[in-house]
Amino acid sequence: MTDCLFCKIVNGEIPAHKVYEDKDVLAFLEINPDNSGHTLVISKNHSENLLDTSGEDLRTLISIIPKIAKGVCESLDYKGFNLLVNNGSVAGQLVPHLHFHIIPRKEDDGHEHFVGEPYQDGEIEQVAEKIRKILK
Amino acid sequence: MTDCLFCKIVNGEIPAHKVYEDKDVLAFLEINPDNSGHTLVISKNHSENLLDTSGEDLRTLISIIPKIAKGVCESLDYKGFNLLVNNGSVAGQLVPHLHFHIIPRKEDDGHEHFVGEPYQDGEIEQVAEKIRKILK
Repeated sequence: MTDCLFCKIVNGEIPAHKVYEDKDVLAFLEINPDNSGHTLVISKNHSENLLDTSGEDLRTLISIIPKIAKGVCESLDYKGFNLLVNNGSVAGQLVPHLHFHIIPRKEDDGHEHFVGEPYQDGEIEQVAEKIRKILK
Repeated sequence: MTDCLFCKIVNGEIPAHKVYEDKDVLAFLEINPDNSGHTLVISKNHSENLLDTSGEDLRTLISIIPKIAKGVCESLDYKGFNLLVNNGSVAGQLVPHLHFHIIPRKEDDGHEHFVGEPYQDGEIEQVAEKIRKILK
């Protein structure tokens, strides 16, 4: 898409710090990293998010992500990583071109995780039933 | 694996609130949700994380995740979601059986995102070079 920031990076119209590229996929550094080495992985084909992308593009992306994540961790001496997609603006998606964040992690890096809370009595069964019904 | 919590859920030894199941994949509610409807999606085949799973299992998982995420959001009236894998204990992984979190999101739900900071001058080029080198 002509007005898409990440498509412009794919096309070379905007520079980026690329760390991996093949004919289908591009990975480059997030410029405001959560930790040094925070990498974004995108398909060269434009799609806005996980709900409008093709299964083929998604399978191509996920197939290469472990290799890239392993490379990020090994080259910078991290012990693990978060793989994250923010799907929709309410979820923190800023650029409407599907991208997977690889956020390398180490002990005591100051990042907290979402902390969940248990359901109220009986609530979990109702929630499960609502989802099951629509997925049937 | 006999001592794996999620394998026990797959085998029916431990109950769970299942929302989707096919021959390869199981999705069930997280019991300590970040938001109501927070769902975990796993492959029935055991693997510990993204780095030891098979490409085939990973492609099977990612192919069904958009459908499940759409179902979670539509049934419970959410506007977006985060897709998250915590890979390794330093990244917050609690159960060593690869699982994708689908965390449905709405405006002002109280969850904050990781907030990144820019690199120091010249640092980003060095980081990119280290990763590129290992990925070659």
